[in-house]
This record gives sequence, C-alpha cells and structure tokens, in this order.
Amino acid sequence: MLDDLAVVLFRPRFPENVGSVARACLNMGVEKLILVDPYNFAMEKARPLATAHAKHILENARIVETLPQALEGFTAAYGTTARTGGWRKGVMSPETMANVVDERLRSGGRVAIVFGPEDKGLTNEETSLCSGLMTIPTSWEGTSLNLSQAVMVVLYECFKKSLDKPFAPGPPQERATTVQEQEALFSNLQESLLAIDFLKKNNPDYWMLPVRRFFSKINLKRNEFNLLMGVCRQIQWFVRTHGPQK
Amino acid sequence: MLDDLAVVLFRPRFPENVGSVARACLNMGVEKLILVDPYNFAMEKARPLATAHAKHILENARIVETLPQALEGFTAAYGTTARTGGWRKGVMSPETMANVVDERLRSGGRVAIVFGPEDKGLTNEETSLCSGLMTIPTSWEGTSLNLSQAVMVVLYECFKKSLDKPFAPGPPQERATTVQEQEALFSNLQESLLAIDFLKKNNPDYWMLPVRRFFSKINLKRNEFNLLMGVCRQIQWFVRTHGPQK
Repeated sequence: MLDDLAVVLFRPRFPENVGSVARACLNMGVEKLILVDPYNFAMEKARPLATAHAKHILENARIVETLPQALEGFTAAYGTTARTGGWRKGVMSPETMANVVDERLRSGGRVAIVFGPEDKGLTNEETSLCSGLMTIPTSWEGTSLNLSQAVMVVLYECFKKSLDKPFAPGPPQERATTVQEQEALFSNLQESLLAIDFLKKNNPDYWMLPVRRFFSKINLKRNEFNLLMGVCRQIQWFVRTHGPQK
Repeated sequence: MLDDLAVVLFRPRFPENVGSVARACLNMGVEKLILVDPYNFAMEKARPLATAHAKHILENARIVETLPQALEGFTAAYGTTARTGGWRKGVMSPETMANVVDERLRSGGRVAIVFGPEDKGLTNEETSLCSGLMTIPTSWEGTSLNLSQAVMVVLYECFKKSLDKPFAPGPPQERATTVQEQEALFSNLQESLLAIDFLKKNNPDYWMLPVRRFFSKINLKRNEFNLLMGVCRQIQWFVRTHGPQK
C-alpha cells in the first residue's frame, strides 16, 4: 500500500536504531529504507533490533554517500525537524504531512521522508532539499524523540491515511436502538423494579427518573437492549413463581 | 496535561524497553509509569535508553506485583492487544481510544493504559480487568510492534487529542467510579443474576461477559454505581425473603 514511500535516514549514529527503524517500516507497510552515510554501521548490531521479520528490509537497505543521491527518482521529500523557529515556522504536523503524502502517492508520486542524525537533526543544507518539513509535537521543548519512535509516529500517520476506509476497524456495528425500543425497555424496567419493591409504589414514574437518566446517556445497541430485556423477563418470572401471592 | 494518565507495563521482559518507554512518556507528557512484576529488571540497563531527561520517570516508576494492585485508584484501564479474534472483536483503534480517554480525563477520571509482555501480550485474565481494548493496525498480521514504539503511537494519539482544547473544569461532576468499584459492582451483579437464575450456574463468569462488556463501556459515575448497587441489594433481598428455601 505504501510501496512508493521510502524512509531516508541521514547519517544515523547507532546501528541499533537503524534496526528498530526497519522493524517500524515493516509494521507500517514501508519496504524501502535508504541510509545516507551511516556512522559506524554494523549489520550485526542492527539485525537483532529489526527482528527476523524485518531482516529483509534492513539487508536490502540502499546505502549512499549523499542526500541528493538518496533522493534520486523521488517526486517529493519531506524532512523532519525538532526545531520550528525562524523560517521553519511553516512546518506541518505529522497528520497534515500524511495527507499531503497520501495525495502524492495516490497521484503516482514517489515520496521520501528524511530523518536526521539522532544528536543534531537535519541542518538547513539538508532541509533545503525537502519539499516540506514536519515536526512531531512534544510536551516539552528541551527533549527529542528516539529516532525509531519518531519514524514510527510518522509512518503510522501515513499508514493510517493509506487505509481507504475510515480507520476504526471493528466488526459491523450493532444498530442503535430506536426511541420506541428504549421506551419499551424503560416500561419493562419499571415493572421489574416495582415487582421487587425497588421503586416506591406511590409515584413510580418519579422514582424511575434516575434509572431512565442513566440508561438514556448510553448509546444503547440492539444486543444490549436484548440483554437488558432478558434480565427484566427473568426478574418478573422469578417474582411470579416465587413472590408473595397477590 | 496528561497528568491523570498512566502507562502500565505488565511483565515487561527487557529493561531496555522500559527505558525507551520512559522516554516516550516524557515526550508525550505522561509522567506516571507503573511496572507489574518486571522480568529481570535492572535500572542500569533501562537508564541509558530513558536518557537523562526521562530519568525521573524511570526512577519514580512504581513497581507492583499484580495488575489489580497497579490499577488501584484508576477509574478506567485500556489494554492493548495484537490479537483481535473472538470476543476481542470490539477492539478500538488508537484514535478511537484516545477520544474515549480524553473524555474520561476531562471528566476527572484517572486512566491507565496497559501493555503486555513483549513476547505474548496480555492474556484474557488481564484484559478482563480492562474497560476496553485497543489494537494498533499493522500492514502485516504475522508481526508485532516493539513495545516502546507501541507505547509511543498510543501516547501520541492521546497527546494529540489533549492539545485540542484546554482542559476546562466545567461544572463539578459526579466523580467516576474506580476500577475496584466497577469490580465490586460486577461481582454484586453476578450474584444477583445468579440468584434469579439469569446466569447459568455451570460457568457464571462466562455468561457474565456480555454484562461486564455492557457496563464497561459506560463511564460509570459514583451516583450511578450507587443506583445499580441498590438494585442488586434489592434483588438479593427479594430472593432471600421470597425465594425457595435453600
């Protein structure tokens, strides 16, 4: 689904992080990983973090010398930054960027997302090669995200966007109950609660109010309606068979 | 902003992952970390991954023996799962869950998000203590996310949601029920439904599941808890005074 999306790591410092990034890529459906001038890269340090599943992404990673080489053949590149001052003010949120990327991919583009070194991030020289910049919001200015966690968040947004249907998966939903069904339930509940003397007989409608209020705030589904009706039936059956003779 | 949100790691296997999780917590504004029965926990292995910035989160992490201990005082717990079959079909996306969590926090709740061990995830025993389940969509069924990357995605969604509008303390609300109160209600409900023969005696825990599920989806307030406990008391009183002699 994200066949034409690639992750570019610019001068990553720790092979372990590269491995973790490969694993994140796999999970979010991105198979292309490009390393630009990685520092002390050692496959045996990266591999365990990639796990067996993402080994192929790591081993097929293209290693190049410069960012322009990495970006060859792409139609757009988006850079990530922790710094948002100065001219970087126009930076996007990951969500906004995911929309832009999605649009590009759907119109046949090939997109690279560029992450800088763990310690310094991308400099102006690299960001000038990018079509746009993005930053991940954090609670605190003074810190930065772990590289693979940052990749994870950005790819997660892209992956989410790439899913055609609204994201929330889940089974076909039970239909909500109609107002009539809710009223039927309330009168059944009232009868049951009267039968066990929970509601006072002098003004049951009034004593029923908190019960109605409680069940009204719930977006009651049809299966839940059936469940509650079943409980009422059972209470009434119990009272009929065991209760005092009228 | 996410002061009343906590991350609970259930039997994490690798201290390094715990450190990475602390870092993710810091960046997403979550200060509370709870470890349940961590495997071979070693602070010196966790600390480097937390970085100096998140050291305090790691060092202040509460370590407990059991999940019920971890959940003491929380008003809701959400579990994460990679398995979505069977009755786990109702699982939420992280986005949906973030909306639910946001709502709970804004109405004064205290919420825990529970993550299982790296190799096995949460079992039914643990998820039964959760008010809801969530899964992170992945491109591929056969694999799983790194623990700290999973935490990162979930907290990122919560943090994003918390940025929407300032937390304005509206009118004083009824306080939300704690997980313990909910458990007390469930066991009281179960006893009452058994007393009127609504639940089958051979495996009441199983037959109780839809009832639990129904009441778990409600952000149950203290006054509603009292109402339902009152109904249970009344059913049990009725059965005691009118039911068949034991």
